Amino acid sequence: MSLSRSISQSSTDSYSSAASYTDSSDDETSPRDKQQKNSKGNADFCIKNIKQADFGRREIEIAEQEMPALMALRKRAQGEKPLAGAKIVGCTHITAQTAVLMETLSALGAQCRWAACNIYSTQNEVAAALAEGGFSVFAWKGESEDDFWWCIDRCVNVEGWQPNMILDDGGDLTHWIYKKYPNMFKKIKGIVEESVTGVHRLYQLSKAGKLCVPAMNVNDSVTKQKFDNLYCCRESILDGLKRTTDVMFGGKQVVVCGYGEVGKGCSAALKAMGSIVYVTEIDPICALQACMDGFRLVKLNEVIRQVDIVITCTGNKNVVVREYMDRMKNGCIVCNMGHSNTEIDVASLRTPELTWERVRSQVDHVIWPDGKRIVLLAEGRLLNLSCSTVPTFVLSITATTQALALIELYNAPEGRYKQDVYLLPKKMDEYVASLHLPTFDAHLTELSDEQAKYLGLNKNGPFKPNYYRSASA
Amino acid sequence: MSLSRSISQSSTDSYSSAASYTDSSDDETSPRDKQQKNSKGNADFCIKNIKQADFGRREIEIAEQEMPALMALRKRAQGEKPLAGAKIVGCTHITAQTAVLMETLSALGAQCRWAACNIYSTQNEVAAALAEGGFSVFAWKGESEDDFWWCIDRCVNVEGWQPNMILDDGGDLTHWIYKKYPNMFKKIKGIVEESVTGVHRLYQLSKAGKLCVPAMNVNDSVTKQKFDNLYCCRESILDGLKRTTDVMFGGKQVVVCGYGEVGKGCSAALKAMGSIVYVTEIDPICALQACMDGFRLVKLNEVIRQVDIVITCTGNKNVVVREYMDRMKNGCIVCNMGHSNTEIDVASLRTPELTWERVRSQVDHVIWPDGKRIVLLAEGRLLNLSCSTVPTFVLSITATTQALALIELYNAPEGRYKQDVYLLPKKMDEYVASLHLPTFDAHLTELSDEQAKYLGLNKNGPFKPNYYRSASA
Amino acid sequence: MSLSRSISQSSTDSYSSAASYTDSSDDETSPRDKQQKNSKGNADFCIKNIKQADFGRREIEIAEQEMPALMALRKRAQGEKPLAGAKIVGCTHITAQTAVLMETLSALGAQCRWAACNIYSTQNEVAAALAEGGFSVFAWKGESEDDFWWCIDRCVNVEGWQPNMILDDGGDLTHWIYKKYPNMFKKIKGIVEESVTGVHRLYQLSKAGKLCVPAMNVNDSVTKQKFDNLYCCRESILDGLKRTTDVMFGGKQVVVCGYGEVGKGCSAALKAMGSIVYVTEIDPICALQACMDGFRLVKLNEVIRQVDIVITCTGNKNVVVREYMDRMKNGCIVCNMGHSNTEIDVASLRTPELTWERVRSQVDHVIWPDGKRIVLLAEGRLLNLSCSTVPTFVLSITATTQALALIELYNAPEGRYKQDVYLLPKKMDEYVASLHLPTFDAHLTELSDEQAKYLGLNKNGPFKPNYYRSASA
Amino acid sequence: MSLSRSISQSSTDSYSSAASYTDSSDDETSPRDKQQKNSKGNADFCIKNIKQADFGRREIEIAEQEMPALMALRKRAQGEKPLAGAKIVGCTHITAQTAVLMETLSALGAQCRWAACNIYSTQNEVAAALAEGGFSVFAWKGESEDDFWWCIDRCVNVEGWQPNMILDDGGDLTHWIYKKYPNMFKKIKGIVEESVTGVHRLYQLSKAGKLCVPAMNVNDSVTKQKFDNLYCCRESILDGLKRTTDVMFGGKQVVVCGYGEVGKGCSAALKAMGSIVYVTEIDPICALQACMDGFRLVKLNEVIRQVDIVITCTGNKNVVVREYMDRMKNGCIVCNMGHSNTEIDVASLRTPELTWERVRSQVDHVIWPDGKRIVLLAEGRLLNLSCSTVPTFVLSITATTQALALIELYNAPEGRYKQDVYLLPKKMDEYVASLHLPTFDAHLTELSDEQAKYLGLNKNGPFKPNYYRSASA
Repeated sequence: MSLSRSISQSSTDSYSSAASYTDSSDDETSPRDKQQKNSKGNADFCIKNIKQADFGRREIEIAEQEMPALMALRKRAQGEKPLAGAKIVGCTHITAQTAVLMETLSALGAQCRWAACNIYSTQNEVAAALAEGGFSVFAWKGESEDDFWWCIDRCVNVEGWQPNMILDDGGDLTHWIYKKYPNMFKKIKGIVEESVTGVHRLYQLSKAGKLCVPAMNVNDSVTKQKFDNLYCCRESILDGLKRTTDVMFGGKQVVVCGYGEVGKGCSAALKAMGSIVYVTEIDPICALQACMDGFRLVKLNEVIRQVDIVITCTGNKNVVVREYMDRMKNGCIVCNMGHSNTEIDVASLRTPELTWERVRSQVDHVIWPDGKRIVLLAEGRLLNLSCSTVPTFVLSITATTQALALIELYNAPEGRYKQDVYLLPKKMDEYVASLHLPTFDAHLTELSDEQAKYLGLNKNGPFKPNYYRSASA
Repeated sequence: MSLSRSISQSSTDSYSSAASYTDSSDDETSPRDKQQKNSKGNADFCIKNIKQADFGRREIEIAEQEMPALMALRKRAQGEKPLAGAKIVGCTHITAQTAVLMETLSALGAQCRWAACNIYSTQNEVAAALAEGGFSVFAWKGESEDDFWWCIDRCVNVEGWQPNMILDDGGDLTHWIYKKYPNMFKKIKGIVEESVTGVHRLYQLSKAGKLCVPAMNVNDSVTKQKFDNLYCCRESILDGLKRTTDVMFGGKQVVVCGYGEVGKGCSAALKAMGSIVYVTEIDPICALQACMDGFRLVKLNEVIRQVDIVITCTGNKNVVVREYMDRMKNGCIVCNMGHSNTEIDVASLRTPELTWERVRSQVDHVIWPDGKRIVLLAEGRLLNLSCSTVPTFVLSITATTQALALIELYNAPEGRYKQDVYLLPKKMDEYVASLHLPTFDAHLTELSDEQAKYLGLNKNGPFKPNYYRSASA
Repeated sequence: MSLSRSISQSSTDSYSSAASYTDSSDDETSPRDKQQKNSKGNADFCIKNIKQADFGRREIEIAEQEMPALMALRKRAQGEKPLAGAKIVGCTHITAQTAVLMETLSALGAQCRWAACNIYSTQNEVAAALAEGGFSVFAWKGESEDDFWWCIDRCVNVEGWQPNMILDDGGDLTHWIYKKYPNMFKKIKGIVEESVTGVHRLYQLSKAGKLCVPAMNVNDSVTKQKFDNLYCCRESILDGLKRTTDVMFGGKQVVVCGYGEVGKGCSAALKAMGSIVYVTEIDPICALQACMDGFRLVKLNEVIRQVDIVITCTGNKNVVVREYMDRMKNGCIVCNMGHSNTEIDVASLRTPELTWERVRSQVDHVIWPDGKRIVLLAEGRLLNLSCSTVPTFVLSITATTQALALIELYNAPEGRYKQDVYLLPKKMDEYVASLHLPTFDAHLTELSDEQAKYLGLNKNGPFKPNYYRSASA
Repeated sequence: MSLSRSISQSSTDSYSSAASYTDSSDDETSPRDKQQKNSKGNADFCIKNIKQADFGRREIEIAEQEMPALMALRKRAQGEKPLAGAKIVGCTHITAQTAVLMETLSALGAQCRWAACNIYSTQNEVAAALAEGGFSVFAWKGESEDDFWWCIDRCVNVEGWQPNMILDDGGDLTHWIYKKYPNMFKKIKGIVEESVTGVHRLYQLSKAGKLCVPAMNVNDSVTKQKFDNLYCCRESILDGLKRTTDVMFGGKQVVVCGYGEVGKGCSAALKAMGSIVYVTEIDPICALQACMDGFRLVKLNEVIRQVDIVITCTGNKNVVVREYMDRMKNGCIVCNMGHSNTEIDVASLRTPELTWERVRSQVDHVIWPDGKRIVLLAEGRLLNLSCSTVPTFVLSITATTQALALIELYNAPEGRYKQDVYLLPKKMDEYVASLHLPTFDAHLTELSDEQAKYLGLNKNGPFKPNYYRSASA
C-alpha cells in the first residue's frame, strides 16, 4: 500500500489517500493515444478509461460522507459564489477526496483544470468520474516521466483559457509555469501550496526576490499541522507497526528519536499500550517536555542495545546510523515516522556482509553474519505513508484548508498580500476547525458581547493572535 | 495558605512560594521604627527582625538544593561576572527562592536593592538572612499600604547609588520610578517584568509611545509558560481539590471551562484519576483539540445539572454566572484555575436568600433556600495560589528566566533592543530549559556538524524559530 | 492528621475517618467521673460532653449526604426490619460515618451498644449526638488503656441485656468476650470483623478449633478491597505526597515495591502525573502484569541510587533496609503504603551517626554525616492513614458491607454458616456495589429472561462465581 | 485472514496463529491418496506435501525466537526428561508455534502423534517439517469432515502404540476416544484441554460422573486468561478496527458492552486513543469498576443514536439486536470481541428491506431503505480472530501452559488428581509467568528467608492462594 515515488521526488511529503484500488487494467494502450469523450461529447481530458466513471462516482459519494466540512462549505458559500471567475489549475494526488475538493471549488464558481502530482497515485476511476462530470483532468496511474510533464502542460497550455489561481502539491506545476510560461503570472492572483517541499521552494524563490505573486503556505496552518502530525501519527504508529510486524506493544522497550509533534504522538500512543518509551532530543525545551510527560530522556547509545523498537521522528538525517544498528539486539524493529527517508542510514546496510530478506511487503530482515536480524520497515521511508492509511478526516482538513486559502487569495483586496509567502490567516484556520466540529457533535460556546469586550476580541474570532501556535496538552 | 491581596492588586498573578511559616511575631513595633544592624554593622535595610537570620539562612540552603539551575548559573557564569557593574533594583515576593536568585545575581557581579511586591508574602526570616548577608532589603510581612510604597522608595531613592536595571513583578516599582524619578531611566538599561499585569502595563506604555527603555516580558517565555500553566496546574488542580474538600475523583463528572494550557492540564489530570470530564471552549481550534483528546465538547448549560465539579480556566469573566449556579446539583464544587477572580460571578451569590457557611479555610458552603449547597473554593479566587503550593522547581524556572533576562538586557550591544517589549530570545529560553535537565538526569543529544548543516541550525541552538511556541502533546 | 496508635496495635489497619476536629477540651475531668444524662433522662453512656450533641448531629447529617447506600438501605429494608431482635455490640472507630451506620442498624430493628476500637479516634461530638439519640456509647478521645477496656466491658457486661451479634474492628471486643464472658457465645449468632488483624485472629481461632460461632470476614469482600486498595490508594498516594512534601511529580523517578492492588494504584497514578515508575515484585504473575502495564521490573538495588521517591506496598517486612537507604540520593522521599509499619526498617535509622530533623508534622529529614538527607514520611507508618484522608465514599462502602454482613448472619437459616470464617456472599457483595451506583448516575443493564437462561444465571445475580475475584483492567 | 470454521464448531474459541501463508497448492490429489516418505524413510504421517519441509523449518525457527519460554523449558527440564515414557496424542491448530511445542515435548522425552483441531488452520509447510522431523502428523489445510475424523483416528488407532496423555483443543479428540476407544482411558493419565468449549464439555462429563481420568483446564490459568483477554484485546481492538475500516479513533464515541477483562482492555485502549467511551454492564461490581475507571455507565438505548462504534464483549447473546441497529446513525461500526458469534443478532439483518454490500474482506455495509448504512465487521464473528492477528507471545504463554500441565499430570503422584477437572496449580501458573519475564529483561525480587517466614510463604512460591485471581490495575 505504499505510495510510489513521484518523478520530482518532491511530492512524496504530502499525503495521497490509501492508494488506488483499481486493478492494473489489461488495456495497454497509452491514454495519450486514445480518443475518449464523456457522455456529453466533451473530450477535453486525458484519462485511462471513461467507462469507469460510475464506479468512481460511488467512491466520490462515499468520500463526501466523510468530508462534511467541504459539503458545508458548498452550502454556506454557494449563494455568493466566492470563486466566480476563478480559473484554477491544480496539480495534486487525484483521489476521491480530491474530487470532492474540485467539485466544491466548481460549486463555488471556479473553473478547474487538473493534473496529478505523482505518477502512481491517481485513482483512474475517480479521474473518469471527474472527466464525465466535465472536468478537464489529465492523469492516470502509471504515467511515464514524459507523460507527467505532458499532463501538466495540457492543463496550462490551452487556447483561450488562462489560469488565475494555482493549487500545487510539491511545486512541479509552479515550476513548470515559471519555466515555460512566466508571462502567465501577470494574471495569476496567487499560489496555494500544500507540501513541505513546495513551500520550501517558494520560500527560496521569495528570498531570491523571484516570487512574483502571493503564495499561501497551507502546510503550516495550525489545524492541518496538528492533524497531520500529532493526531494522525498517534494512531498510525500503532497501525503501521501492527500491519507490518504484528508486534505486541505491551512491555516492549521503545526509543523515539525526536519529541516534536510526531514524536509526542508516537510516544503517547506506545506508552498507552504498555510500552516503556525512551526519548532522544536535541532541543532542551522539547527535552524538558519529554521529562515532564514521563519519558526518560537519553542519548541513543545509552539504550540502543536494549530496545525492541526504534522510531525516528526528527526531520534530521543519519539519526540511526550503521554503528547503532550493529549494536541493536536480535529482532529489533527500525522505522521512520519523520519527514524524509534520510533519518535511517539505509545505504549503510547495503553491504556484502549483510543479507537482506524480504519477509513481507514493506518488511525486510537485515541479517548480520552472526545471525542477528533487524526488522527494517518500508526501507526507511515513511511508515505512516507506506504501511498505514491516512484517515479521510485528516484529508478533509487539508482539502478544506486548500479551499479556504484559494478563496482568501482570490478575494483579497489589492495590497493585502504582496509577493511573499503567507500563512493562512488565523481566522480562516479557526474556520477550518469549526467546520469539522459537527463531526464530533461538539458544541462551541459563544462569547457574550460583554465577554468579547472584556477580552478585546471579536465575537467571531480570531481568538488567538497570529503567532499563537496552539500548543496542546 | 492563601496569598493575601497585594496593595496594587497587580502582583497577584505571579507566584510567591507557599507562604511564610513565620508566626505573627509578638513584637508589635513597626520595622520602620526600629534600628537594626547586621553583624558587620551594616544598617541599610529595613526588616522585621535581624535575629531570625540563621533560621532564614537554613531555608535558603534548602531552596538552593532544589534550584540547581541557578546554582549552575553561578558556577558557569561566575568567572566572567556578566553582571559586573549592574545595579539592580527589584520588587518581587521575598522568599527563600528569591533569595537564591538575589545571591546568584550578586555572585554574577550585581549590586541589588530589594522591596516586596506584596504586603503579605515576605518571609521575614529570609529577609533577615539577606540583610545579614549584606543586601539592602526593605520588606516585612504585613506592611501597610504606606509601608509598601515607603519600602519601594527606599530602594530607589538612595544617595550615591542609582539603579541601571529593574526587576519587577506587577509593575509597581516601574510605576513608582515613572512617577517619581523619571530621570532615572536615562541610566537604566532595561526592565525585566514577570507578571501578566506588569507586562500588560508595559505593552500599554509602549503603545502610547511612553516606554523609554527596553523591557523583557519573561512571563511569556515558552519554558515558563509550560511550567506555570500545563505542568503546574496538572498537579495543583488535584492538590487544591483534595486539600480543600477531600473529594474522591474516581467516577466524578467534571466540567472544565476553557481548553488552553491550564484547561488541558486540569482535564488530563482528572481524566487520569477516573473522572469523566466535559470541556467548554470558544475557540474552534482548541475545541477540536479537546475532541481529539477524548473530551465531550459541550456548552455549560448542557451539563450543569449533572456535574460534580466545575472548574474555570478561561481568563474570561462571568463564565459561571448565578443562573448556572442555581441549576447545579447539591454538593457541586466550584473553583477557579484561570487568570483572575472574575470567572465565577461570586458577587451574584451575595444575596439575602443565600446563606454562606465557612466550613474550612478557603471553603464556603453557599446554601439555597431549599437546602441545596454548593461548595465554593477560595471565594472564586485562584485555587492553585490559594489552596495548593507552587513547587520550587517551577519557581526555579521563573527565577532562572529572570536572571538570564537581566544578563541579556544588561549585556546586549547597543541597538539590539529598542524602546519596546521583547520576549526572551529563543536561545535563552532553551538555555533555561537545559539548565533544568540535570534534575531529571536527562541527557540531551548533540547535533553532528553534518546534521546541523543539513538542518541549517547552529549546533548550540536556537533550535526553533522565535515564533515557535513549542506545542506539546 | 495522623491516627494515633490504638492500645492493642490491632486496629490500626482499618480506617477511621480523617480524625476528629474537636479541640482538646479544657475540661480535664475524666468522663468516667462525670454524671451525664441526655435530654430524655437516659444516662446509660459514657462520653466526653453531652452538650456537644448538636454539633455532632450536624456532622452526622453531612455524612448522611455522602452515604447514600446506607440511607437507601434504611428505606429499602425498613419495612421488614431485618434486624428486629438483634442486639449488636460494636467496637469500631466512632465517627460521623459510624454514626450513620449505627442509626441505620437501629432503623432496621437492632439495639446497639458501642465502644471505640482506638483510644484517639473518637469524635467526641459525634459520640455526644449518639448518646443524645439514645445509643449506649462508651468512648471518648484520649482514653487510657484502662479506660479502653473499661468501655468495652461496659458495652457487654449489662444487667438484663446480652448481645447476639458482634461487630468488631481489630478483634479486641471479640478477644474480651472470649476471655471474660465465654458463655455469651451461646447466644451470639455471629461476628462481623472488619480489619486485617482481626480477621487473622479469627482464622487462627478457627484453625485451632476454638471459633465457636460463624464469623464474617468483610475485609476481603471484593467491593471493599477494590476501594480500600486500588481506587483509594490511586488518589491517596498523590495526596499524601503533596501534603507532606509539595513534591512535583512530573519527571520524577519513582520505585514502587510490590504490584498488588495498592502498588497498581500507586504506579498508575504517578505514571499519569508524568513520573517514571519502576516496580519490584516477588510474584512472577504480578511481575508480568507490571511489564504489560508498561513498567520496568527491577530489583531495588538496580535503581536505588537514582530514584527520587521510594514507595512500599508489599505487606512484607524489611523491604527498604538501611543498606538501601545508605545508597539513596540526597532528597529521596521514602514512604509506606503497604499493610504495616514493618516495610521500612526505620529502627535501623535510629543510630547515633544519623540526625533526625522534624521539618513538618509527619515529615522527618534523616541526615547522614556527609549532609545527605532522606525525607521519611510518617516515620514509616502508613502514608494514606497518616497524611491523607479516606473519602467518605470509601467508608460508605465499608459500612454498607458491615450492615449487610450483620443482616446476613443474623437471618441465615440454621446450618448455612458453621463455626468458621466466611467471605461475604457474592450476591451481597454485588448488592453493596449496586447501592453505590446511583452516586455516579450509573445505569445497570438487566438481563432478559432469555439471556439469563443462556448464561445460566439468576437475573438478580450473583453474576459471578464466589471464587471470582473481579480482576480489573 | 479469518480462521475458518472447524467441523465441530468447538475449536473456534482457541487461537490459531495468523493463518497459513501457504498458497493453494495446485496439486489436487488428496493427501490420503498419496504415498509419502520423509528423508529417513518414515511414512507414518499424512500431510499435503513433504517437500515443503524446508520452508516449514524456517517458519519454526522464526517462531522459536519468539517463544523463549518453551526453549528455556527444553533446557531446564531436559536433563531429567520429565516426559520420558509419555505417549501424547494431540489435536490442536497445527502451526509453527505448535511445532515448537511438539518439539519441546519430544525433547522432554515424550512421543507425540498429532491431528488438527480445525479443517482450515493447518500450515501445510509446518506439517511437512514435523513429518520430516519424525513426528506422526495427520493434517492438512482444507480437510473434509470425513478427513477430519479420519486424521484423528489415525492418531489414536495404531498397532502397538497407545496414548497415555491427551492434549486437546475443542474436545473433538477426547470425544472420539470416548466414543470409539473407551478402554484406552485405562492407560491414560490425564487430559489437558485448551478451549472454552472443550472445558465446558469436560465439566459436563464430570458432573455426569462420566469423566474417567483427571483433566486439566488450562484455559482458565491466570496468566493465560490475562493475556488472551486483557492484554491481547487491548491491542487487537485497535488493530482489528484499523485494518478493516481505517477509522480514526480520536473524538469518536464508542460504546463497549460488557466490562470484564475484554471490555476493560477495549475501553482502556480506545480511551487512550482519544475516543469517548461508554460502558454497559449487568454486574454491579464490574459496573462500579467502570465508573471508577472514568467511564459513563449507561444502558445501550441511551447512547445508541449517538455512538460511532459499538463493541460487544459480554459472552452473552442478543446484546445488539435489530431494534438497536435500526436506531444507529449512518456509518456506525458494529463488531464483536466477546466469546461467540451470538452477541450481535446478525440474523435479524438478513431481511429483504436491507441491502448487504461487501466492501472489503470481513467488512459489510448493511444498508437501510433510507440510505443509512452500518458497517458490520466479520459478520458478527470475533473481530480479534477474524481481522487481527494473535501475537506469538500470547501463543507462547498458551503453549507453555499446555506443556507444564502435561508434565504436572504425567508426574503427579497417585491420588493427587482424581477424576475431576482441575485448574493449573498456582505454582505452575507462576512458573509460566516467570519463564516469560526474560523477554522483558524483567528482574524478579527474591524473598529473604526472614521475609518468607514472616509472610508464611515458600521462597519459590506459590505466592498467592489458589483462589487468588490476580486482579490487575
